Amino acid sequence: MSVLRPPADRTLDVVCIGNAIVDVLAQTDDAFLDRHGMAKGAMQLIDTEAALAIYGEMPPAIEVSGGSAANTAAGVTAFGGSAAFVGKVADDELGTVFGHDIRAAGVRFGTAALVGPEAARGTARCLILVTPDAQRTMNTYLGVAALVDGDDVDVDQLATARVVYCEGYLWDEPTAKDALRKAMDAARAAGTPVAFTLSDSFCVDRHRDEFLDLVDHSVDILFANEAEICSLYQVEDFEEAAELVSFHCAIACLTRSEHGSVILADGERIEVPAVATEVVDTTGAGDLYAAGFLAGWARNRSLVTSGEMASIAAGEVISHLGARPQADLVALLEASR
Amino acid sequence: MSVLRPPADRTLDVVCIGNAIVDVLAQTDDAFLDRHGMAKGAMQLIDTEAALAIYGEMPPAIEVSGGSAANTAAGVTAFGGSAAFVGKVADDELGTVFGHDIRAAGVRFGTAALVGPEAARGTARCLILVTPDAQRTMNTYLGVAALVDGDDVDVDQLATARVVYCEGYLWDEPTAKDALRKAMDAARAAGTPVAFTLSDSFCVDRHRDEFLDLVDHSVDILFANEAEICSLYQVEDFEEAAELVSFHCAIACLTRSEHGSVILADGERIEVPAVATEVVDTTGAGDLYAAGFLAGWARNRSLVTSGEMASIAAGEVISHLGARPQADLVALLEASR
Repeated sequence: MSVLRPPADRTLDVVCIGNAIVDVLAQTDDAFLDRHGMAKGAMQLIDTEAALAIYGEMPPAIEVSGGSAANTAAGVTAFGGSAAFVGKVADDELGTVFGHDIRAAGVRFGTAALVGPEAARGTARCLILVTPDAQRTMNTYLGVAALVDGDDVDVDQLATARVVYCEGYLWDEPTAKDALRKAMDAARAAGTPVAFTLSDSFCVDRHRDEFLDLVDHSVDILFANEAEICSLYQVEDFEEAAELVSFHCAIACLTRSEHGSVILADGERIEVPAVATEVVDTTGAGDLYAAGFLAGWARNRSLVTSGEMASIAAGEVISHLGARPQADLVALLEASR
Repeated sequence: MSVLRPPADRTLDVVCIGNAIVDVLAQTDDAFLDRHGMAKGAMQLIDTEAALAIYGEMPPAIEVSGGSAANTAAGVTAFGGSAAFVGKVADDELGTVFGHDIRAAGVRFGTAALVGPEAARGTARCLILVTPDAQRTMNTYLGVAALVDGDDVDVDQLATARVVYCEGYLWDEPTAKDALRKAMDAARAAGTPVAFTLSDSFCVDRHRDEFLDLVDHSVDILFANEAEICSLYQVEDFEEAAELVSFHCAIACLTRSEHGSVILADGERIEVPAVATEVVDTTGAGDLYAAGFLAGWARNRSLVTSGEMASIAAGEVISHLGARPQADLVALLEASR
């Protein structure tokens, strides 16, 4: 048995599917989180009322395009790879901002913006509080992002890709979940490997049985952090979770913050160190880790090199506010040699 | 004759009046400016078509509330002072962003958002290209900001203020110009000193005769950089311009980038050094200089101390992307002692 490789004769490195979100980032203190009953480091879904209440009390903020899988797509192109993104925005100002930023990052983004009455829900936004310890706590108003549907999934495009990357967060909404299922099924039919991120430990809590089934039957490359993989298998010990996941998918990339990551593939275990950096804002760390790994793997680089690329991309994005790369990742990779 | 002092028995430090703008900031190279025929370091007004064309070619951007006089108001509160802002946004997403950010900065902002057919022009945005030399080149789509009018000027509020700060840019639009004239006249009637910024050398070119008249008859405290003050008097030598302006208003604050600034008041000349910093983005340097000076002057601090506060605020804002302070300016001032 050999390590999973990308299919030959493909023209596109990665298709990413996820929530199309504009991040609203502000720096604040722990007391703000306590006052609003937020769990530090987690993502919670909020409704319009909560969004208005939290925003009303937030310090001055900046708006930056985000969305987990969208950040990953932007990270792939920052490494010189090719990427497409599938996700739903409304025909509004934040939708325009999202569409501009992802296209300007060189990502193909063909999903039509939503018009009509439902568009009044607005483009999704994530109210992110960054505390002095550089942790980010996320409050997501999903808006129309939840309405990405099967029709938005381009089966022909999936058949041209070396891998499709799916965001676990989509499982929270029935329409988006259908879109994700369609993408996974179409990928399988086309021989395109499926990568999946567990997204968030609370997200895993909400969908544990289905996620276990997905990892077992539909996912080839799994991304998870320590809390997520332990939550998935309901164990407390990381090593135990790592052993369990190794039986269930071809490649598992398990991230452990400043302790680096572990890549498990075909009985092999690779320890990847984190890149030392001054941490400003951890938003996007996991997304960019996945970007670096997939940008390498899709071009047939070794697991070790792909892991290094993952660490470099994650290290860059946590060194500044915002979840998309600001530096030339190719140059950072070359400088690391 | 003694130096101009703020009136006694006032409850508000500064009322700022200017264009309410959200900045759209991206880092780019000189070739981008050349390709679009932009004059580096300047501000040009653009129409909808140009805004779409430039935005369409801009790299991924971040959105941050801006507007010259609004940045100044946020700088005053960052020094613990009290400030109000008068300016027009539309009832749209960017208008919400602007209103949130300025209020979250502790600035009183009571101008009603524009609704109705004219609101379709949208909240103003400034497409700012930051080049590797940290210079910012600004392309402003004014939208509804141009529609701030006399009714938005609260005469009673002006009578409670220690100084009103007016943005020269408002002179470009007839409605906004009327609002500015009303504010200056009301301030004079209430005994509130008038501060004014020349804003931009091209703006001075467009309105030289009227600006000369304003400086002569309506302005007590003038803010200008080297290019602007030389343009006003159509001289090439800074010292010549400095001598000329000293005859025409009570206090003139002339900024010279890394060479610091010169404050001329009542025959006195104070040289203020710049604060050394790693320059990332010069957007807002002049706005925050004015904020620091006025925050000091309004509280009866000496011209020397007010100048130091100006340099500290300008130095902080050019050390990061975006035109509003991110650090605690009071702490920076204390640390400088």
